[in-house]
Amino acid sequence: MTGNLVDLARGYYFEDFEVDQTFVTGSITVTEDAIIRFAFEWDPQPFHIDRLAAEKGVFGKLVASGLQTMLLTSRLVYDFGVLSGTALAGLGFDDVRFVKPLFPGDTIHVELKILEMEPSSKPERGRVNVLMRTINQNDELIYHTTLIVFIARRS
Amino acid sequence: MTGNLVDLARGYYFEDFEVDQTFVTGSITVTEDAIIRFAFEWDPQPFHIDRLAAEKGVFGKLVASGLQTMLLTSRLVYDFGVLSGTALAGLGFDDVRFVKPLFPGDTIHVELKILEMEPSSKPERGRVNVLMRTINQNDELIYHTTLIVFIARRS
Repeated sequence: MTGNLVDLARGYYFEDFEVDQTFVTGSITVTEDAIIRFAFEWDPQPFHIDRLAAEKGVFGKLVASGLQTMLLTSRLVYDFGVLSGTALAGLGFDDVRFVKPLFPGDTIHVELKILEMEPSSKPERGRVNVLMRTINQNDELIYHTTLIVFIARRS
Repeated sequence: MTGNLVDLARGYYFEDFEVDQTFVTGSITVTEDAIIRFAFEWDPQPFHIDRLAAEKGVFGKLVASGLQTMLLTSRLVYDFGVLSGTALAGLGFDDVRFVKPLFPGDTIHVELKILEMEPSSKPERGRVNVLMRTINQNDELIYHTTLIVFIARRS
């Protein structure tokens, strides 16, 4: 026995979304250790992994890789659940922008807004464009992008 | 003692790039184990982590998370070196598109092309837009995006 997508779904189906709908995810605190470990594997630039080199760099201190901000954002959205199980395939992202650095010790959450919805040529799914805005503990926008994803229909 | 960005640079400076210049990175083989481990941490959807559920899904078999394709692409570009040390800050990505799935056992490389260059208001850097196209062992385009990055100037 194994689970299948419909059985496991805890997310919204295409019919449950509407344009301008908003959601707010939970939060995560991003430690210096998490920043260094992630960057050492995926993006080992000095300003992500070397505290002393980072002090001489553009930001004046260690900052997270933008790729980590992107993945943490996706994971917070996954854990929130509104797309979980009903998201069938990601087409891509538009306008990925790193607006402010993610610093060690910052706590971030994600605000979602449904921008666009379009029924697909395939009747079992529809395309949804979701604005994802990542906000730190000072209510500053640090990152945003628009996810383009196929969502299952109920019918 | 610690390294600094200029000492460590093995990448091209802004002046070394020109529009339409192309580069080809090395390759990596992506195993089923790598796909499942990555997705279990970052994108634990059934079609990325459960071989049996994936067989009932849209793709008919296990596929890598698009986020993993994105990170592997960035890491192949980092290891290639043309942006290493001279890339000062990433502004973002445009038109992130998952064109075909990345399947277990696929071997991918990245083709880079310089699309746009613009001197910055700050004299020590310039903005470069780099098209990154990820290609599998069958010469199929599976992913593309445009990286927007500030690159250090020599002067």
